Amino acid sequence: MLYHGKLQELESYLRDGKAPPHFEMAGPREKIYFDPSKLKCGIVTCGGLCPGINDVIRAVVLSLHYHYGVRTVFGFRYGYEGLTYRYGHEPLELTPAVVDDLHQQGGTVLGSSRGPQQVSEMVDTLEQMNIGLLFTIGGDGTLRGAQGIAEEIGRRGLRIGVIGIPKTIDNDISYIQQTFGFETAVSEATEAIYSAHAEAAGARNGVGLVKLMGRHSGFIAAYATLANSDVNYCLVPEVRFTLDAFLQALKKRLEGRRHAVVVAAEGAGQDLLEANAERDASGNIRLGDIGTFLRDQINDYFKKAEMEVSVKYIDPSYTIRSMPANPHDSAFCLMLGHNAVHAGMAGRTGMVVGNWRAEFTHVPIAAAVSERKQIDPRGRLWTGVVSTTGQPRELV
Amino acid sequence: MLYHGKLQELESYLRDGKAPPHFEMAGPREKIYFDPSKLKCGIVTCGGLCPGINDVIRAVVLSLHYHYGVRTVFGFRYGYEGLTYRYGHEPLELTPAVVDDLHQQGGTVLGSSRGPQQVSEMVDTLEQMNIGLLFTIGGDGTLRGAQGIAEEIGRRGLRIGVIGIPKTIDNDISYIQQTFGFETAVSEATEAIYSAHAEAAGARNGVGLVKLMGRHSGFIAAYATLANSDVNYCLVPEVRFTLDAFLQALKKRLEGRRHAVVVAAEGAGQDLLEANAERDASGNIRLGDIGTFLRDQINDYFKKAEMEVSVKYIDPSYTIRSMPANPHDSAFCLMLGHNAVHAGMAGRTGMVVGNWRAEFTHVPIAAAVSERKQIDPRGRLWTGVVSTTGQPRELV
Amino acid sequence: MLYHGKLQELESYLRDGKAPPHFEMAGPREKIYFDPSKLKCGIVTCGGLCPGINDVIRAVVLSLHYHYGVRTVFGFRYGYEGLTYRYGHEPLELTPAVVDDLHQQGGTVLGSSRGPQQVSEMVDTLEQMNIGLLFTIGGDGTLRGAQGIAEEIGRRGLRIGVIGIPKTIDNDISYIQQTFGFETAVSEATEAIYSAHAEAAGARNGVGLVKLMGRHSGFIAAYATLANSDVNYCLVPEVRFTLDAFLQALKKRLEGRRHAVVVAAEGAGQDLLEANAERDASGNIRLGDIGTFLRDQINDYFKKAEMEVSVKYIDPSYTIRSMPANPHDSAFCLMLGHNAVHAGMAGRTGMVVGNWRAEFTHVPIAAAVSERKQIDPRGRLWTGVVSTTGQPRELV
Amino acid sequence: MLYHGKLQELESYLRDGKAPPHFEMAGPREKIYFDPSKLKCGIVTCGGLCPGINDVIRAVVLSLHYHYGVRTVFGFRYGYEGLTYRYGHEPLELTPAVVDDLHQQGGTVLGSSRGPQQVSEMVDTLEQMNIGLLFTIGGDGTLRGAQGIAEEIGRRGLRIGVIGIPKTIDNDISYIQQTFGFETAVSEATEAIYSAHAEAAGARNGVGLVKLMGRHSGFIAAYATLANSDVNYCLVPEVRFTLDAFLQALKKRLEGRRHAVVVAAEGAGQDLLEANAERDASGNIRLGDIGTFLRDQINDYFKKAEMEVSVKYIDPSYTIRSMPANPHDSAFCLMLGHNAVHAGMAGRTGMVVGNWRAEFTHVPIAAAVSERKQIDPRGRLWTGVVSTTGQPRELV
Repeated sequence: MLYHGKLQELESYLRDGKAPPHFEMAGPREKIYFDPSKLKCGIVTCGGLCPGINDVIRAVVLSLHYHYGVRTVFGFRYGYEGLTYRYGHEPLELTPAVVDDLHQQGGTVLGSSRGPQQVSEMVDTLEQMNIGLLFTIGGDGTLRGAQGIAEEIGRRGLRIGVIGIPKTIDNDISYIQQTFGFETAVSEATEAIYSAHAEAAGARNGVGLVKLMGRHSGFIAAYATLANSDVNYCLVPEVRFTLDAFLQALKKRLEGRRHAVVVAAEGAGQDLLEANAERDASGNIRLGDIGTFLRDQINDYFKKAEMEVSVKYIDPSYTIRSMPANPHDSAFCLMLGHNAVHAGMAGRTGMVVGNWRAEFTHVPIAAAVSERKQIDPRGRLWTGVVSTTGQPRELV
Repeated sequence: MLYHGKLQELESYLRDGKAPPHFEMAGPREKIYFDPSKLKCGIVTCGGLCPGINDVIRAVVLSLHYHYGVRTVFGFRYGYEGLTYRYGHEPLELTPAVVDDLHQQGGTVLGSSRGPQQVSEMVDTLEQMNIGLLFTIGGDGTLRGAQGIAEEIGRRGLRIGVIGIPKTIDNDISYIQQTFGFETAVSEATEAIYSAHAEAAGARNGVGLVKLMGRHSGFIAAYATLANSDVNYCLVPEVRFTLDAFLQALKKRLEGRRHAVVVAAEGAGQDLLEANAERDASGNIRLGDIGTFLRDQINDYFKKAEMEVSVKYIDPSYTIRSMPANPHDSAFCLMLGHNAVHAGMAGRTGMVVGNWRAEFTHVPIAAAVSERKQIDPRGRLWTGVVSTTGQPRELV
Repeated sequence: MLYHGKLQELESYLRDGKAPPHFEMAGPREKIYFDPSKLKCGIVTCGGLCPGINDVIRAVVLSLHYHYGVRTVFGFRYGYEGLTYRYGHEPLELTPAVVDDLHQQGGTVLGSSRGPQQVSEMVDTLEQMNIGLLFTIGGDGTLRGAQGIAEEIGRRGLRIGVIGIPKTIDNDISYIQQTFGFETAVSEATEAIYSAHAEAAGARNGVGLVKLMGRHSGFIAAYATLANSDVNYCLVPEVRFTLDAFLQALKKRLEGRRHAVVVAAEGAGQDLLEANAERDASGNIRLGDIGTFLRDQINDYFKKAEMEVSVKYIDPSYTIRSMPANPHDSAFCLMLGHNAVHAGMAGRTGMVVGNWRAEFTHVPIAAAVSERKQIDPRGRLWTGVVSTTGQPRELV
Repeated sequence: MLYHGKLQELESYLRDGKAPPHFEMAGPREKIYFDPSKLKCGIVTCGGLCPGINDVIRAVVLSLHYHYGVRTVFGFRYGYEGLTYRYGHEPLELTPAVVDDLHQQGGTVLGSSRGPQQVSEMVDTLEQMNIGLLFTIGGDGTLRGAQGIAEEIGRRGLRIGVIGIPKTIDNDISYIQQTFGFETAVSEATEAIYSAHAEAAGARNGVGLVKLMGRHSGFIAAYATLANSDVNYCLVPEVRFTLDAFLQALKKRLEGRRHAVVVAAEGAGQDLLEANAERDASGNIRLGDIGTFLRDQINDYFKKAEMEVSVKYIDPSYTIRSMPANPHDSAFCLMLGHNAVHAGMAGRTGMVVGNWRAEFTHVPIAAAVSERKQIDPRGRLWTGVVSTTGQPRELV
């Protein structure tokens, strides 16, 4: 049986509603659980693109090959579909030669898809292909899927490890300080804000409006605001605002300065949208689009106020998430991939590789998906945002 | 009276429907028409943003100051509105200190606006402010406005020169080989195509769709396609296509390769849109949006064909046009600004500074606005596009 | 008298050779020590360039102005020279308008210089100009100078606060987890490594050799190695190596792979250089140049071995350190500047603003300059470097 | 026999010392000289790196494969060494899969070397390997080598075509308006100048000195100067200057402005260096290093003048030339490669693909290497440089 040791102990804390005292530190272990010469591994990437996915794939393959001597690594195509036989996606064999320059490319060489698949079918595939170790790169839903797979493996009494590698460009996974791709996303987001500012300043009563990623947590919007001093209003899911207060503040700004830049995380102002409860294939609630909503509201408001404004709306999401990782994220992905391999080879399972206060850790999946990490509206980050933009602390 | 010499001669060719044999070469002249110590100049920027506007403003101010000793240069705010008294826009005084780092910023420091203003009001402003030389940076509509101003100046018998500096990110002005900002736009466009490719390849039957600028001429789309070998279909206004042919070709590609990248110039396929003849404030026909149209058509078509596709639509226009000029365009804007000043100081008027076969030229406004420059579907450029994408020469 | 409170308590730990238990958290305080309407502040930048200096200057000026209402901020020119009357450098008045776009420029708008000046002369200047709060941006030597100034202020019984803002591109200051400019430097360094790899691979037995910053600590070299997987040998001050072992390893690599990339921190291999004990104007030991030394040693060794090699040596230091801050560092500099102002306005003095585990802190200058932060050769970072490059753990 | 037609006619003009009236236009021809199903092709890259080499290799391979159906393309390794049997370099087989992402990498995937090899040995290799078409990518020396090969082929009566693709980052080949990589080089050079300016402005009497490529022609230095308005002195091979005049001008500038930026092409001021007539392996004269020479002369001069200056010397050559091509150059390389294939498949030989006034042309090698293209000191480009830097037209 695979080693669950500390992970189970930690899970007991979570069951009791307590924060676990410490996570196990990541890194190579003295004892290796698998025989590398016979081990077959698999990698699967799920959900939306994020800078650095290819870096992680590459790091896992190279570490398995050069650090442990594992010779066979399969890349399953198009997310969990690739683990489901009836889709007929042939897996890609990942050798050092195949992954050599992979880190220079955005996207995922394996392809991805959203949404769950039948757990039993996926474990069938793992059994039939004789996979001993599966690495799943994905967010919340993917990690829950990985946990389902690990549990089914347990029920069948198989010797297959499942290691999750957390991917969330929003950086909103609990007990994990920073996820890969986040810094690249902030960098790229500043370019969109730069454009929004140039457009706004280039027109009389110009409003540059940028929607950034962040369904439940506004970290990208907040850090991009700090990194680019042209933002006048930063709207995030964690801080409620009313249309009236926002539009009045915007009017005042335009009257004084003749242009304004607004940044909105995609999950901001959801109460304003009377969001219907549709869910996408991954089970995420379909949010109404705050970007086009705000654009239309601004236009309506100023039309009524008989003030001519020029709103330029920019939605850079696809461009941001498909960029290659920047050097910070590249270095981070490399160490993340290495530590995922160390954990898997040591016999860990049902866990994700996290990081906290500059150390890599082993985090039980249950802990990682237990709640979302969000901006604290009274904390240092949001205070910095408010004092930089000069926006009112309360837009209600 | 201002010198019209060769320009009038050239215009006679145009009147007779003939191409003019040669344009006057640009550059400094021995005789200066104005007394620099008394001359007041004005600059105005109109229409949409374009990389390099600030470079041109800076080059004009520095050349007037350092090459000729002109001490007073006004920047009129928000396009032709700034020349119209009743808007109340205070002009900005442009000194070398003010423009020193201007070339490092995208947008226009003066602000811009679309649409014409009353010619007589604008000439009133020039008279009242005692402006001797006006530089207008803008496209088709702006140049027609400049010609109107020059003609009214002529009628009033004033000693005011009007020099046009052609700005069209689409690079579609006649008798002018390349306009500033075009190369930067192509560069930036390749980033959007990169993203479209990563998104397309990252999904089963992924289609990355990019709309690029180009209302009547597809130069940006064509060159960006050559610069980025991931494009499978390039659609431009100059080459007609039918939906059926395009969608069938796309289906065939997806069946074979599982992803595709489509680039469409904004003016492509206008016959398909049954464009209504609305016109915007500058008098340009309002085109239907080919980007969202194609996105919806692709989705509908494959839904009917019961083939699941994933279309990612990217519209990078605002981001592209608000970038600072790249080094090529910076150098070009510098020389363009210098030559505009040389032309103005030498007493030329009613002309734009063009360039042709690596030389700067003086082009009568009438010639520049006479017809659009477009891609020749049988020429070298389009042949290169077709042989790179592998798309059928005829998509009908 | 200025508040020293916790700082003095912390210093007692240091005197006893113990690590201080906790640093005071940074941030705004309820009580403000100075009357903002009468306060005059000064900023000085010393030592070599580093990405983000202008960001910090800007953040300090804007925070003083908008958060506290301080109206007069002087920028002293050319480091401590600017505080020394006899140099005759007129200070620059720093208003919000002056610093508005400053963060987009590399370098320092104030100019810098190396080396100490007479403490008494500098305090004379502060007295004569009626400065109440001095911000010094600089490294080790600068911070020692700031401490001298603070002590002299104490002796004279003046009400002048001195706040240090740590600047070290090498990221080698104790009790401070990361210093500004470091991430930008790592990013830029990867470009030089990219070039070194292209040059090396482009020649038979090509060796690309890059010298990076890092006099005593090899953090830039180590992280740039992780971020760019083309490095085969990373040499840092913290890990001793012998020429024989290094050159033999290099020979073996060339025989097998025909090219190699070597990255050396400037302080690596100093024992090999029989460094003479010269010191520069700032009192730093003048290190021999490991870059040219290695280049010559490699050439000699392979000449003797009758093996034709082609060594391309790249020293990107000036280019790296003069770049503008990247978005990560921009956001960091903003918060750093704000917290320096908060500390100063609350009456703190003789301290630097540090950061540790994602929090900003107040660190006594004595603690910050007590010892250098270095790579732990048995730690996670160096293990990552060794497992990525594949270089022998011991090159002796 | 291969078709020489117009080329021979053109050569007769050159023999008589006349400029040829027109070059043959490039492009696909109706008749194909070779049977694609049996044709084997070779590519070789010689001399120093240049942005875009891999783009050209890729374009040639893809055009041969997709446009003509040629299935076998060999990449000879390490320049003309790869064509010389006794070096034992195994050629690389270049398939569409191998070259697919090649354009995203700087350098040359084939490796390069300098210097000539025995023509007879190289033609032996071509015969033995049954190569029908050889593409040589290189500069002056390489093209002369290609001509030698073509002549030997003629003597032996073989059916082997030789097509030169001109590579010179300096853009100094006659009858060819622009060579690939040049625009990328200018772009990258501006970054070094940016750094030099930041370093210069960051120190009292700071001098930023940048050496750029340009052995005989200063085009990179001149265009980079136009693209970056911080340059105060631009020194090129085409315009003589004396040390006295230059140093006096520099002194005056420092006294007034306290910093200066100097850009020198590597071939500038060679008369000052008393260059000894050494030649490198390619037969080029070994020039003394103007960069370190000027640095030392500036230091000496101001030491004698008892004026403290701080000279920062930047030599970015390796970094510039190993960058990937920018989008402009990528598009250009693509069309260049296609046209080289069209020429070769049509039976042309002993020629290079040139471009002139926006058209691709066939230029006899003899014409291309007949003389160097240089800056005209009385022309538009140099006038632009002088009027931007404000440097004296005569520095003698």
